[in-house]
Amino acid sequence: MSNIENTIDRIQELIETNADEQLRDELNAFHEADIADIFQQLSAEERLACFLKLDEEKAADVIEYLPAQLQVEILGDIDETLASRLISKLPHDEAADVLGEMEEDESQTYLDKLPEKFSSEIRELLTYNEDTAGGIMTPVVLTVSYTMSVKDALDTIRIKAEKENMELYYVYAVDKHNHLLGVVSLRTLLTSPVNLSISEIMSRDIVKVQVDDYQGHIADIFMKYQFNALPVVDLYNHLKGIVTWDDVQDIVEEETTDEIFTSSGIVTDLGDDDDDLLTGSLAHAIKARVPWLFITLIGEFFAVSITNRYDHTFTALPVIAAFMPLLAGLGGNIGTQSITLMVRGMSTGQVSLQDGWHHIMRETVTGVSIGFIFGLLVTLVTWGWQHNLQLGVIVGIAMSLNMTIATIIGTCTPLILKKLKIDPAVASGPVIATTIDVVGLAVYLTLVTWYLIKL
Amino acid sequence: MSNIENTIDRIQELIETNADEQLRDELNAFHEADIADIFQQLSAEERLACFLKLDEEKAADVIEYLPAQLQVEILGDIDETLASRLISKLPHDEAADVLGEMEEDESQTYLDKLPEKFSSEIRELLTYNEDTAGGIMTPVVLTVSYTMSVKDALDTIRIKAEKENMELYYVYAVDKHNHLLGVVSLRTLLTSPVNLSISEIMSRDIVKVQVDDYQGHIADIFMKYQFNALPVVDLYNHLKGIVTWDDVQDIVEEETTDEIFTSSGIVTDLGDDDDDLLTGSLAHAIKARVPWLFITLIGEFFAVSITNRYDHTFTALPVIAAFMPLLAGLGGNIGTQSITLMVRGMSTGQVSLQDGWHHIMRETVTGVSIGFIFGLLVTLVTWGWQHNLQLGVIVGIAMSLNMTIATIIGTCTPLILKKLKIDPAVASGPVIATTIDVVGLAVYLTLVTWYLIKL
Repeated sequence: MSNIENTIDRIQELIETNADEQLRDELNAFHEADIADIFQQLSAEERLACFLKLDEEKAADVIEYLPAQLQVEILGDIDETLASRLISKLPHDEAADVLGEMEEDESQTYLDKLPEKFSSEIRELLTYNEDTAGGIMTPVVLTVSYTMSVKDALDTIRIKAEKENMELYYVYAVDKHNHLLGVVSLRTLLTSPVNLSISEIMSRDIVKVQVDDYQGHIADIFMKYQFNALPVVDLYNHLKGIVTWDDVQDIVEEETTDEIFTSSGIVTDLGDDDDDLLTGSLAHAIKARVPWLFITLIGEFFAVSITNRYDHTFTALPVIAAFMPLLAGLGGNIGTQSITLMVRGMSTGQVSLQDGWHHIMRETVTGVSIGFIFGLLVTLVTWGWQHNLQLGVIVGIAMSLNMTIATIIGTCTPLILKKLKIDPAVASGPVIATTIDVVGLAVYLTLVTWYLIKL
Repeated sequence: MSNIENTIDRIQELIETNADEQLRDELNAFHEADIADIFQQLSAEERLACFLKLDEEKAADVIEYLPAQLQVEILGDIDETLASRLISKLPHDEAADVLGEMEEDESQTYLDKLPEKFSSEIRELLTYNEDTAGGIMTPVVLTVSYTMSVKDALDTIRIKAEKENMELYYVYAVDKHNHLLGVVSLRTLLTSPVNLSISEIMSRDIVKVQVDDYQGHIADIFMKYQFNALPVVDLYNHLKGIVTWDDVQDIVEEETTDEIFTSSGIVTDLGDDDDDLLTGSLAHAIKARVPWLFITLIGEFFAVSITNRYDHTFTALPVIAAFMPLLAGLGGNIGTQSITLMVRGMSTGQVSLQDGWHHIMRETVTGVSIGFIFGLLVTLVTWGWQHNLQLGVIVGIAMSLNMTIATIIGTCTPLILKKLKIDPAVASGPVIATTIDVVGLAVYLTLVTWYLIKL
C-alpha cells in the first residue's frame, strides 16, 4: 500500500458504484493494519459498508488495530450478535479495552452474550485501574508445572497454544496453586534435553510486576531490561497475566505525549475519562489549557508592573519600548532550548542530578557564547538603524546578558524541580518563559534607564 | 534495587575499603541492566575497578546495556585481549555498534583479533549506513529450507539456536540461494503436525524491509503491524538479517528526541558524527542552536520596527508599553499549546490533513473561549489597577483577539507545512512564536493608538 490516498479513492469509487464483489475481494486482500489505516480516512457510512464486506476473522483482526473511538462506533453500528462474536475473538486485553470504552449498560449487554469463561475473565480485567499492570495485561498465560519434564512441557504447550490464542514468548513455571516460581524462554525449552525437569532449566531470578503497578513503571522496566513480556503477579505471587511489548509500545507513546504536552503547559492528568484533547469534549480541552495560562497571566502582570515603573524612560526615549519584544523573544527561545535539552535528557537518562553541575557549566558556556554573538549582531544592527552607537551597545549588552541568564534559568530550573521530586516537565514551559521575561526585562530596563536616561 | 543512591554509596564504600571479594559477590548478584545503571553513576576509575570484578559472561552482558561512550571508554581501558573476547560475545549488531563508535585504527585492531567468521560478518555490517536497516539489523537469522518437514525444522532449530546466540521469534523459510520465501511463527511450528512441509504452513505474505530503508520507516512499520521482528532483504530478496523490537525501541526514542528538539528550534540533522548535544563538542551544540535563534532575531527586528512606529503612543501613554510583555507572553503560550497538539497529533496519526478543517474549527472555538475568559480577566485587573475602564477594555479586547489569532496561527501553520511536505516540527516553535509576537503587537498597538490616543 504505497499510496494510501489512491487506495482511498479506489475504495470510495467501489462503494459508490456498488461493486460489492470487487470491494470484498480488494479489501480482504489487505493486511488488517492497512485496513485499519484505510478506515480512519473514510466517513462513518463508508466505514460500515466496508466493514460488513470483511471476512469474520479479518474483521476481528481489524478491530484490534483501530483506535478506541472507532472500535466502539463500528461495534455499535453492526448487529449485536455479530458484535459479540467479534469481541469474543479478540485477545482478552483488547476485548476488555473495547468494553471499557463503552457505556456501562452497553458493555453489560455484550458481557452477558459472551461465552461464560471469557466473560468472567474480562469482568475481572475490568476491575483493575486501566493505567495499571492489571488494566493492560492479558490474563491468558502459558504455564507449565515446575515438576514437568521438558518433553511433557513441549507437549502441553502444543495443546494449550493451539486451543487458545495466546502469546508465546516465555513459558512460566508455577506450582499447583499457580504461584510463579520460574521462567523458561522458548529457546531454552527447545534446546534442552527432553528428559530434564523444568525446575532444572528455569530461571528463578524473575523480573515481574504487581497487578497495581502503574504503567509508567512497567514501561521503565521494559526499556531497562528489554524483555518481550513480563509476568504480572498479585500480592501473594499468584501469576495473573502477562504484559507484552506491544502493550508497552502504547504506554510509551502515551507517556511521551504527556511529557510533550506537559512541557507546553497543557495539563494531562485531569483525571477525567474523556482525556483525548484532540477529539474529546471542548470543555475538557479548555480545562486542560487554562491553568498554566492563568499562572502565566499572573507572572506577566508582574512583568507589566515592573515595566510600568519605567514610564519616564519610555516617555524620554520611546524606542526603548520597541526593543522589548526582541529581548523577550530571543531570551524565551534560547531558554526553551535549554529546558528542552534538560527535560528530555532526564527522561532518557542522559542527564542525572549527579552530573547536574557539569550540565550547568556546559550550558552557561553555550549561553555566554551565543549571547556574545547575538549581542554583537544586535549592537551592529541597532547602531546602523538608529545611528546611535550608545543605544546599540546598551541594547547589545542587555541582549547578551538576557540570553545568558535565560540559558542558566532554563538549565537550572528542571534540575531543581527534579531535586524537589517534582516532574521537571510540569512547570517547565510557561513558568520558565515568564520568569525569563520578567528577569530579562528588569535587566534591560535597568541598564537602559541607568546609562541612557540618567547619564 | 529499590534505591540506587544507597547502592552507589555501598559500592563506593566497598571500593574505598578494598573489600574486593565482597565487591565481586555483590556486583555479580545484580542484573546486568542494574549494573549498567550503577556504572553510569560512578567515576571512570570506580567503573573500571568494578568492571574488572565482573565474571566474563556478565561483563559482556553489561557492555550491551551501557551507552556507546561508556562502552568505548571501558573497552579502551581494559586489556586488549580481554576486550576482543568480550566483543566476540556480543550479538552481532551490538558488536558492530561498539566498533563503529571507535576510531578507525582502534576498531581495525579489534577486528583483526576477532574470530574470522564473526569479524567478516561485522565488517559487512559496518559497510551499511548506521541509520538504515542494514546498520541496525542482526545478521544471524534462524532459517530453514522451505522443503523441510516440521519435524526436521524443529531439529534444525534445536541445533542452530543452541550453537549461536540468536533471537527466536520467527523462523524464516528460504530456498537454497537464501531467497526469502516465507515466515513461520514459533507458535505455528510447535502446534503443527510434524509431518507437514514448511511450505504448507508458512505465510507467504511477508512484511519485510530493504537493507537501505531508513530507520524512521522501519519504526513506522513496527508500530503499525506490531511485529516482534522484521526480516531485512537486499534488492534480490536475499535474506540479510532481522531487525528486532528492542532495536526499534532505540529508534523510537531517538526519533521522539528529534521531534521534541526540532519543535524547540534545535537543529538535529547537522550530519555530524558527533551528534550528541548534551555530551558532544560545544561547537556542535552551539551550531545546532544558532540557526533558529538567528531567524527569530530577524523576525523580532521586524516586530521592533513595527513597534517603533508607535513611539508617539508610548510618549503619550507609557503604560501601553508596559502591557506588551503580557500580550506577547500569553499569545506565545496559547499558540505553543496549539502547535504542540497539532504536531504531536500528526506524529501519532490522530491528526491528518483530511480532518484539518475540523481541527481548525475546534481550535478556533477553544481560542475564542479562552481568549474571552482572559480578555475579561485582563480588563478587570487593568481597570482595578489603573482606574481607567477604557484602557482596561481596550487591553482586554486586544488580549482576547491576540489569543484567538495565536490559536489559529498555531493550528494552521503545522497543517500548511505538512501539506507542503515540510516536517511540521521544523519551523514550528520559533517561527510561529515570532509570527504571533509580530501579529499580536500590531493588533494591540493599532487598537490602543486608535482608541486611546487618537480619540
